[in-house]
Amino acid sequence: MFGITPSARLRPSAFYEATLAEGVVAFTTYNNMLMPTSFGQPEAEYWRLIHGVSQWDVAVERQVQIDGPDAHRLVQILCPRQLAGCKVGQGKYVPLCNHAGVLINDPIVLKLDDDRYWLSIADSNIWFWARAIAAERGLRVNVSEPDVSPMAVQGPKAEDVVASIFGDWVRALKYFWFKRTEIEGIPVVLARSGWSKQGGFEIYLMDGAQGSRLWNLVREAGKPWDIGPGNPSFCERVESGLVSYGGDTDGNTNPFEVRMGKYVDLDVADDVVGIQALRRIKKEGVQRQQLGVLLDGDQPVELGFHWHPIYHQGQRVGDLTNCVWSWRLKRNIGFGLVASACAVGDLVEVQLAGKSVTGTLSALPFI
Amino acid sequence: MFGITPSARLRPSAFYEATLAEGVVAFTTYNNMLMPTSFGQPEAEYWRLIHGVSQWDVAVERQVQIDGPDAHRLVQILCPRQLAGCKVGQGKYVPLCNHAGVLINDPIVLKLDDDRYWLSIADSNIWFWARAIAAERGLRVNVSEPDVSPMAVQGPKAEDVVASIFGDWVRALKYFWFKRTEIEGIPVVLARSGWSKQGGFEIYLMDGAQGSRLWNLVREAGKPWDIGPGNPSFCERVESGLVSYGGDTDGNTNPFEVRMGKYVDLDVADDVVGIQALRRIKKEGVQRQQLGVLLDGDQPVELGFHWHPIYHQGQRVGDLTNCVWSWRLKRNIGFGLVASACAVGDLVEVQLAGKSVTGTLSALPFI
Repeated sequence: MFGITPSARLRPSAFYEATLAEGVVAFTTYNNMLMPTSFGQPEAEYWRLIHGVSQWDVAVERQVQIDGPDAHRLVQILCPRQLAGCKVGQGKYVPLCNHAGVLINDPIVLKLDDDRYWLSIADSNIWFWARAIAAERGLRVNVSEPDVSPMAVQGPKAEDVVASIFGDWVRALKYFWFKRTEIEGIPVVLARSGWSKQGGFEIYLMDGAQGSRLWNLVREAGKPWDIGPGNPSFCERVESGLVSYGGDTDGNTNPFEVRMGKYVDLDVADDVVGIQALRRIKKEGVQRQQLGVLLDGDQPVELGFHWHPIYHQGQRVGDLTNCVWSWRLKRNIGFGLVASACAVGDLVEVQLAGKSVTGTLSALPFI
Repeated sequence: MFGITPSARLRPSAFYEATLAEGVVAFTTYNNMLMPTSFGQPEAEYWRLIHGVSQWDVAVERQVQIDGPDAHRLVQILCPRQLAGCKVGQGKYVPLCNHAGVLINDPIVLKLDDDRYWLSIADSNIWFWARAIAAERGLRVNVSEPDVSPMAVQGPKAEDVVASIFGDWVRALKYFWFKRTEIEGIPVVLARSGWSKQGGFEIYLMDGAQGSRLWNLVREAGKPWDIGPGNPSFCERVESGLVSYGGDTDGNTNPFEVRMGKYVDLDVADDVVGIQALRRIKKEGVQRQQLGVLLDGDQPVELGFHWHPIYHQGQRVGDLTNCVWSWRLKRNIGFGLVASACAVGDLVEVQLAGKSVTGTLSALPFI
């Protein structure tokens, strides 16, 4: 592991000071910000998420705010998923595509008002994208970044912690729905959401100056449930089959290849960016698919910075896009972006760190 | 300094293995890649650039390739600088702007052929930008990323090193001009360029598999001049007045505010993105300017991740966007993005790490 040099190009989070106080030891960069990736006890942090409750700085999940009279129109133009029925207070997971149908982000779209949306984005510049489309089409919108910093509370005990702070009404909140509220005067949006399959909430802080206050408030409230610091867990997200845009996708990936086809509505209007390409891709046949790869062996290996080639019967069939030791399965597991002809159960070989490792294609999620 | 966690979202450079062998100890991220920022001897690395020759992995300076019958048309539409006279083999520094005249990147535009250009970009996603504009305007172009990895050779002895490799013809190459050539079978583009004011070249490797070979070839050739590893020098670039897009700019910065007005041609065609806004800004008056800030005191301070507010006579007048100890000036220096009413010689106070530090506005570059 190497050091990361401070730079004004890398914006610290509203929770940066709080995570320093918690003992953060490593970061990744995401949307030109720093996100904690370790507090020094990876396995304990993992089990805390699986069995307890974990508190994450996910302020890197930045908001592209689109407001103005044509806000709904622009958001629908950007999204190849039908948003007509989306209610104020509802969120939707959407694969954003370019004109060629290539995935460029996979945000949660939050409808705050009839004329105001947030795209809570993965790691790519959707301000540029939305501004370009809006300006070229002459739409009356503002594309901006509001002062919003999400913190996640994740794990089976997350609901109890969040209910103890905001009240029992949170228990009725449906997945991806949200509500504007406040806690001790701090304005927030509370959503049932989060990048794990262990359940939980995201608290979108709406005043960056209150980051440490909100962090400590949740930290104190969570003590009866042994809350502790964590971050999106590489192990848990692979076990749970969650896709990382830019990690598991390349410059040619379309939504159908990475199990996002169910979030594409091919009958949206013809002016939606990418929809004509997506219809053509669907009609002509999708070339790749995402499957699990269960690797043989009982020693942890790490993928590092690269994808690794996957072979089946001596033929290159695709790439291993991530790889992690599963503490629950006691196996190395990963995602394969492989040819459509591949099937669950196929035996494969992966070139990893100069060695050939055998494995088996499997369904996703693993757990 | 914190650790950086490996991720497939962060592409390693073609020179990654070579820089590991050189003893790299820290990185920054840039265009979703890793760039070395230290080989462990910051002051020695600085003086090597000032007095000798230094070899840098700047593969993060990625290429947005635009080719096809409308390539020239698209590139001019993206660039508020007149490119009509640009020759094949010539490069131009261009401030790219959005429709509101806000700076979104400051690439070198390299004209490889009449119908093929590279935008050698700073830290933002210009593939998204160029593809959006091209598709919305129905232009016949391909926007892609070629297999190209720039390595810089910088410093007063760089020309001797590069001439010893490629021949004496390189001495006649004009600034930002380039030539396709090869060395021991490795295809490269050689340009007189580089992100320092100490002179030098960039060698654009055109075969990523040859990264270590090219690195070592330059390393061997440079031995008579005591070449050694380095990276874009934070100290030297601040002394020399070089702007870092995303570091010294924010979401509202226009080119006039950061000394790039001379690269804007207000009489380019009306369909150039941002030109109408730039004309209006110029007419209505530019609100901010970039000046140097010479800080008092003889102890190094570092800016870290933040900008810091600048005050003049008790009034907030702008921000310190970078700050570094100058080994030549023996002072802390930085750039101020300050109100247009400010002037060289004004006494200012900067809030740095909880303390008020006094200083003086100065002209740029410092040296």
